[in-house]
Amino acid sequence: MGVAVRICFFGDSFVNGTGDDGCLGWVGRLCSAERLGGADLTLYNLGIRRDTSEDVRRRWRAEADARLPDDCDGRLVFSFGLNDLAPADEHGTPRIAPEATLDNAYAILTEASAWLPTLVVGPLPVTSSAERNDLVVRYSDRLKNLCAERAVPFFDAVPFAAEFHGTWRSEADAGDGIHPNAGSYDALANAVRRWGPWRSWFAG
Amino acid sequence: MGVAVRICFFGDSFVNGTGDDGCLGWVGRLCSAERLGGADLTLYNLGIRRDTSEDVRRRWRAEADARLPDDCDGRLVFSFGLNDLAPADEHGTPRIAPEATLDNAYAILTEASAWLPTLVVGPLPVTSSAERNDLVVRYSDRLKNLCAERAVPFFDAVPFAAEFHGTWRSEADAGDGIHPNAGSYDALANAVRRWGPWRSWFAG
Repeated sequence: MGVAVRICFFGDSFVNGTGDDGCLGWVGRLCSAERLGGADLTLYNLGIRRDTSEDVRRRWRAEADARLPDDCDGRLVFSFGLNDLAPADEHGTPRIAPEATLDNAYAILTEASAWLPTLVVGPLPVTSSAERNDLVVRYSDRLKNLCAERAVPFFDAVPFAAEFHGTWRSEADAGDGIHPNAGSYDALANAVRRWGPWRSWFAG
Repeated sequence: MGVAVRICFFGDSFVNGTGDDGCLGWVGRLCSAERLGGADLTLYNLGIRRDTSEDVRRRWRAEADARLPDDCDGRLVFSFGLNDLAPADEHGTPRIAPEATLDNAYAILTEASAWLPTLVVGPLPVTSSAERNDLVVRYSDRLKNLCAERAVPFFDAVPFAAEFHGTWRSEADAGDGIHPNAGSYDALANAVRRWGPWRSWFAG
């Protein structure tokens, strides 16, 4: 069966897989592919709609402690920050200021990576607004640097978003305007699955 | 799209869907069927391997509060207790005594049903031990009575387990001996999907 791992995925609605009629999202599709490839993997999907980095910071450790006892081979994956950028009022003020987002990311990733193998999947610039997507790319760059400093592997989702923007937008527009469906989640699962740091978890 | 609901499922490894190569379990298969049927449903799978009723009692409210804000149409499904019956030592003493299990169930279901629409899926007598299965059936009967007193709908899984015992055991024996795979989880999803109290959530 290969290695037996239990993985907690923390983040927002994209981690949850909101909009996927298959109820898998990229997380479920990724983990199912590994199981079908022989891995003995247990998935805990802890993505929550609307969650900001502050929300994840508040809850992740308690939820992970309940799921990853010491005698298990636990792993952590984080993907958050898009909801931080969402406007909190009519002036476009973000729900969480960029400095606070980075501070939350620093706190989460420092504690997480000192505890268990940890990966970050970067934010997806997949909205219909070029201006908003620019903000996402800027956040992604800063988070990438932070991860490099903490030696936490960072999956850069910006090239993925560029390649699959059309698929994502057409699925999102057929849904609630934000969340895609099976095709986009499947594409992201495939991209993360080929990513070296993820692959290394299943090489043993 | 029909009604928009967000459902938190709390329980053990069977709720998590452990062993399912599709990474859906009965919970994911059930919710995907409703989405494909037109429901706008968000799934939060909060099953945890090894969790007893005590573990669920300790964590369920905080995890549900983080996922079901007041302005959402939140729902709760619980399925726990099998791990309570597991032996804690070589004398076969259960991890949680039956009285404590029922006390935990009472506390959880009283608080839950006063807050949000709540369902219970009963315990599954699907082990390879007839003696153990008898214990499960006895627990199921007591939980059924408790649910009736609290007016919480209870899905009796005993007839299901009798009908699908062969499928479940052959899948479990091909896996880790306890957890089945896609066929059994699919069968349970179909059975719960036909159940009146579940169906009533999607009649609006």
